[in-house]
Amino acid sequence: MDFAAQFQAYRDRAEQGLDRLLPPGTTRPARLHEAMRYALLGGGKRLRPVLVLAASDLFGARHDALAAAVAIECIHTYSLVHDDLPCMDNDDLRRGRPTTHKQFDEATALLAGDSLLTFAFQLIGRHYAGQPGLAAALTREIAEAAGSERLVGGQMEDLLAEKKTNATAEELEFIHLNKTAAMIVVSLVAGGLCGGATDAQLDGLRTTGRHLGLAFQIVDDVLDATADTATLGKTAGKDAKAGKTTYVKLHGLDASRKFAREQTDAALAALRSLPGDQKFLAALIESMASRLN
Amino acid sequence: MDFAAQFQAYRDRAEQGLDRLLPPGTTRPARLHEAMRYALLGGGKRLRPVLVLAASDLFGARHDALAAAVAIECIHTYSLVHDDLPCMDNDDLRRGRPTTHKQFDEATALLAGDSLLTFAFQLIGRHYAGQPGLAAALTREIAEAAGSERLVGGQMEDLLAEKKTNATAEELEFIHLNKTAAMIVVSLVAGGLCGGATDAQLDGLRTTGRHLGLAFQIVDDVLDATADTATLGKTAGKDAKAGKTTYVKLHGLDASRKFAREQTDAALAALRSLPGDQKFLAALIESMASRLN
Repeated sequence: MDFAAQFQAYRDRAEQGLDRLLPPGTTRPARLHEAMRYALLGGGKRLRPVLVLAASDLFGARHDALAAAVAIECIHTYSLVHDDLPCMDNDDLRRGRPTTHKQFDEATALLAGDSLLTFAFQLIGRHYAGQPGLAAALTREIAEAAGSERLVGGQMEDLLAEKKTNATAEELEFIHLNKTAAMIVVSLVAGGLCGGATDAQLDGLRTTGRHLGLAFQIVDDVLDATADTATLGKTAGKDAKAGKTTYVKLHGLDASRKFAREQTDAALAALRSLPGDQKFLAALIESMASRLN
Repeated sequence: MDFAAQFQAYRDRAEQGLDRLLPPGTTRPARLHEAMRYALLGGGKRLRPVLVLAASDLFGARHDALAAAVAIECIHTYSLVHDDLPCMDNDDLRRGRPTTHKQFDEATALLAGDSLLTFAFQLIGRHYAGQPGLAAALTREIAEAAGSERLVGGQMEDLLAEKKTNATAEELEFIHLNKTAAMIVVSLVAGGLCGGATDAQLDGLRTTGRHLGLAFQIVDDVLDATADTATLGKTAGKDAKAGKTTYVKLHGLDASRKFAREQTDAALAALRSLPGDQKFLAALIESMASRLN
């Protein structure tokens, strides 16, 4: 298996799905739909939709997982658009381009974020209308992952932690598990649902995703502390400058790298409990950790 | 039928459902859940959940409509919370109390709005898990009504119209149909889905809701121009002060009252095509218009 080629193939499918499933920029109101497309189609790794598609393929991909993949990327993107707003992280740069509120204005970015979140559920409703059991399960899993006790809860605690600049290790884990890992977990679970995974297999996907999500966030923290803005495509060293508590600040670089390695190994172990050809997902999980080398 | 008593009975059911179904304010992160509850439990007419429950009762209420009613009120409330933010309408007062961003802060209000929107779909997922066909239909109808081409689209055009202060009658109708009528329509449709309405009956509910929504918005515009802040429980005369284009500004008070009457009559006519005991819904529709007398 050529990992890079396979990743690119999944990524291309995701990009095409995003472009095709999003309403055209000319849809009324045009400014809103242009902002949605600007936020969504500005590049990015597409890690989450790739995870959806790859997880679905593990189980034979009984139902097309593309709409679920696009829905999850819409939610991820909405969370970035709102996170970048002046009242949140107040960031000007995202994926090497002006953030949505810089390119348009704050109100348009707010509404574009709201629209992207809602559109995720429109997509599930439209594309799985013929499989109501699947539509209902996807709605349930995705909404729970994106909700006040997971994704948004993580953002809220992240914000509170920034203000006090002395968050505990326990608070930091809550933030990582919810702000980052929840959407990684649900990417794998949504793929599993489309592929026809059993409940036990869905649990295996959850465990894989939780470890992968933690590894991913810690690698991000390490890169923020060690890489430059051009490499990252977003403002580097921002966490330290803001006095923000990160895994690196709390435990140091060496312990962070070690923890990332442990979480990567745990993700790989959980993946091995699943059926199908796991080579691609194993290489993807490994590639996260290897960003640190 | 005692309309006031019946309305209060539906409203009480909605209030109890909101309090019971929302996560407790102590749920982690507490600040976020307190803000969600502050925004949602601060009174309000509860028109939309009452419409859901009453529409469901027309058809015999095959499935419990309370979770759908609460979900729709969550979406209505999120749209108010985001609409009140400084980058949008910048309003300090809502239902006679400080707006959510005034009571908490902007970031918390932003995230509480995001959470309420998401929670609507969590509720649908949780409460109709045993009826996947119903869950999928509710997700589809509610997400479409709340999306970029309806509710959020209406908010976007409303914002653009404010900036130019010379919106056309056509633009104003787009705003009213989408910013206001879409969620009124889907309230009736969600009730119909829970009650077991046929496709033709759902269409009748859509027509009723569209006319009711237009009447409702025009009555609001007339009241904004003629009533005082204490009566409204929100800042009065705000539209005129902002130079905002309203139905009243465009067509005058007399024509606005006449149009509200016509839309009310059209809503009543559409309602008569539906089965069941229509007395309560007819009285509710009439009560909207009679606020002007």
